[in-house]
Amino acid sequence: MDTTPNSLEDAANLVKVPQPTIERLSAYLQCVRGMRADGVPTASSTEIAQRTGINAAQFRKDLSYFGEFGTPGLGYDVADLEAHLSRIMGLDARHDVLLVGAGNLGSALLSYPGFPERGFHIVAAFDSEPQRVGQVLNGCTIYHIDDLAKVNSALNAQVGVIAVPRVAAQETVDKLVAAGVQAILNFAPVTILVRPGIVVRNVDLTSQLEVLSYYLSAQ
Amino acid sequence: MDTTPNSLEDAANLVKVPQPTIERLSAYLQCVRGMRADGVPTASSTEIAQRTGINAAQFRKDLSYFGEFGTPGLGYDVADLEAHLSRIMGLDARHDVLLVGAGNLGSALLSYPGFPERGFHIVAAFDSEPQRVGQVLNGCTIYHIDDLAKVNSALNAQVGVIAVPRVAAQETVDKLVAAGVQAILNFAPVTILVRPGIVVRNVDLTSQLEVLSYYLSAQ
Repeated sequence: MDTTPNSLEDAANLVKVPQPTIERLSAYLQCVRGMRADGVPTASSTEIAQRTGINAAQFRKDLSYFGEFGTPGLGYDVADLEAHLSRIMGLDARHDVLLVGAGNLGSALLSYPGFPERGFHIVAAFDSEPQRVGQVLNGCTIYHIDDLAKVNSALNAQVGVIAVPRVAAQETVDKLVAAGVQAILNFAPVTILVRPGIVVRNVDLTSQLEVLSYYLSAQ
Repeated sequence: MDTTPNSLEDAANLVKVPQPTIERLSAYLQCVRGMRADGVPTASSTEIAQRTGINAAQFRKDLSYFGEFGTPGLGYDVADLEAHLSRIMGLDARHDVLLVGAGNLGSALLSYPGFPERGFHIVAAFDSEPQRVGQVLNGCTIYHIDDLAKVNSALNAQVGVIAVPRVAAQETVDKLVAAGVQAILNFAPVTILVRPGIVVRNVDLTSQLEVLSYYLSAQ
């Protein structure tokens, strides 16, 4: 496998990378960001494993999808690894995000510091409640949901976040896709359907608690 | 492997079940709940795979950690499978939950319908802001964070949810653990440390967007 930086994305496209690997890449990236913030110049896979809780062999296997990193005996240059992981994840560009649903959860997401800090900017919010439309929350205007396509024809955002009640989720997805959105983060606890080529991640907050429940009962 | 219902938990304890399997069990459970709501009496693993997006072989492998389910040629009795999955996940009992942080995100979680619908009841909330302490949100009293141990000595909740700013996250964890909490869902975008025996799940909302970003850039 060619290991020059420019071939990383090509390499990723040649092999279907398992989704859990992609999810762990985000954890590794968080880890090396923390190391760089702490002034750590280099790290072994064991040190990275200690911080992430993901074992070192898994880490090396996950990275191997994208080329060769690190120097045997010296470990990984932390700044280099951060840059590589950012490129692999497509995080070297800013991402504009549309938020649909400006209730409790939507308002929380509008003020969530982790989004803009890591390059995700909510550039417009949408709601169907007349009393919310026209308000500005955290610098972001709330438009009527019926204006989604019109607003996004100017903004051209590719990422949508759904924070609407579950009954409105599928309709919201369809409107986002019609407006040109290609990737959707869905907080509504319901399965939504999209055509091939559109990527959806469902954030089911209750299933996170169900996983904890398993470990409580298995103890 | 013994397949009587009473041995399911024992079987789970004999083998270390991979965490991704536990996460998928929650997806299967959601799927069979939906099937039962739709009046579907039995389902094949292929039908379940179509609904979950997780392939049928993976589904059968995941279930195999917990015994034998289903009847060859007839598939799975949906109500039976739901009951088994609920038992495996420890969801046949109610879970009381403490919420720390009653800001935007905490308020959203207090009104998130998915929690009580699936057996997770936020029985007390905590905050350090004097103007929030004493308020009642969605039927739940907000106490001062310093009263956490005292309040939980009466409630005896084992699950904690952290929705505080990242700088306060580790301190909050320590207080929850000192108050007897054994499982923690952490929304603060920071790694927290706990002693062995305490289970933590970090919900890093930005990493969900980073995973979407990967798929956008890989297209």
